[in-house]
Amino acid sequence: MAKTKVQILETGASPAQDASPGGYKVFNRIIDWITNDRLQLLNITDRINEIVRKSGIQDGLVHLQSLHTTSAVFINEWQDALIHDVKNFFEQVVLRDQYYRHNDPEHSDCERKNADSHLRGMLMGQTLCLQVRNASVLLGTWQSIIFAEFDGPRSRSLAVQVSGI
Amino acid sequence: MAKTKVQILETGASPAQDASPGGYKVFNRIIDWITNDRLQLLNITDRINEIVRKSGIQDGLVHLQSLHTTSAVFINEWQDALIHDVKNFFEQVVLRDQYYRHNDPEHSDCERKNADSHLRGMLMGQTLCLQVRNASVLLGTWQSIIFAEFDGPRSRSLAVQVSGI
Amino acid sequence: MAKTKVQILETGASPAQDASPGGYKVFNRIIDWITNDRLQLLNITDRINEIVRKSGIQDGLVHLQSLHTTSAVFINEWQDALIHDVKNFFEQVVLRDQYYRHNDPEHSDCERKNADSHLRGMLMGQTLCLQVRNASVLLGTWQSIIFAEFDGPRSRSLAVQVSGI
Repeated sequence: MAKTKVQILETGASPAQDASPGGYKVFNRIIDWITNDRLQLLNITDRINEIVRKSGIQDGLVHLQSLHTTSAVFINEWQDALIHDVKNFFEQVVLRDQYYRHNDPEHSDCERKNADSHLRGMLMGQTLCLQVRNASVLLGTWQSIIFAEFDGPRSRSLAVQVSGI
Repeated sequence: MAKTKVQILETGASPAQDASPGGYKVFNRIIDWITNDRLQLLNITDRINEIVRKSGIQDGLVHLQSLHTTSAVFINEWQDALIHDVKNFFEQVVLRDQYYRHNDPEHSDCERKNADSHLRGMLMGQTLCLQVRNASVLLGTWQSIIFAEFDGPRSRSLAVQVSGI
Repeated sequence: MAKTKVQILETGASPAQDASPGGYKVFNRIIDWITNDRLQLLNITDRINEIVRKSGIQDGLVHLQSLHTTSAVFINEWQDALIHDVKNFFEQVVLRDQYYRHNDPEHSDCERKNADSHLRGMLMGQTLCLQVRNASVLLGTWQSIIFAEFDGPRSRSLAVQVSGI
């Protein structure tokens, strides 16, 4: 992943919605990337932890939602060799080069020929919800939060919501 | 999907559980369908948005949970050509016509021969959690909420819970 | 599953974080298992319901998060014949015996040769969020909560968080 340059912008900042002093709060952010490759994985763990810390929330949930169908968010170990295997798995479980109506001009006006990207995003899911404990994201020793680009290069937005007390 | 007639009933309505004036609330609903085909996809986005609006909740989460193992809820673009590809993908990734113990009277008392339906539901997941922002479900431009029937025709129930402030 | 002996320990108990009398609460627990097989499924429904009851929360969410990448949590019917089919499905959809860089000493220092376990965990997901209604986990008639071990035997921890009112 050495040559991957990812630009991260923080937009859409909203003040925490505080229900009552010391009570339940909701803290919303949108973070943005520009991806470089058609199939690309990004380790976004540090960025999510930073937002959780900023929220001031000690206990609750952090919810991640990619705003694009041809992307996904999930957990895995972040190791170069494994990331290579993960990409191969996506290419095997959903083939790019087979007939799809979504890629056929007779049935679809989509010019990106990205039916495989849609199926990969759907299979892995665009959302991930994790626990917040002691003011940080709960993760096991080998767990990283991974954003998957399935139809890059593109500008991508991830909505992050921290809620709790 | 033109010939699909889906009946939607709203049942199990409960008043919002309001913790304190202006504070955290939980709003529960059950919505019902009668599906028409063995493998059928339904766009339920408008129904979910309607429930979120009724809840009066501005910021928080909306959680969807199908109460049936042989069904699923997920996100994808709602385009006829793609929906056709999605159905084909389910038929390819989990084959219907292979040996399953669940379909074998020697091992199972299930008469529906629906092992494939169970595996498809398990793979895609019966739950989906999305963010509520500005009193509506947060969705990207091309994101629709899709309910998948894997063993219809049947009566199906989806539990919807909106929580937040 | 008759010969499976699973030891369940409850650790990391924390008092419920109570925001205000009658208000939003967060209740955290960690439960532990020692698994027996490389690929093993456990029905953890009763354990989760017990924690929800202890939490005293009537309406809200229960969030489950396995702290290990080579494991998963999901819903399915708990029937012996079907559990057999589910295991076969995992072995088919992600092959163990093919080349993976993660298993290759030239690319990886992982001695467990468990690339397949990582891919199975990633595909199924380490988290599951369910609704709490009337002080118990909302589940359909045939829905059980299943923990999947993909790289046992091992000691495993599941973080359970109940939040709501």
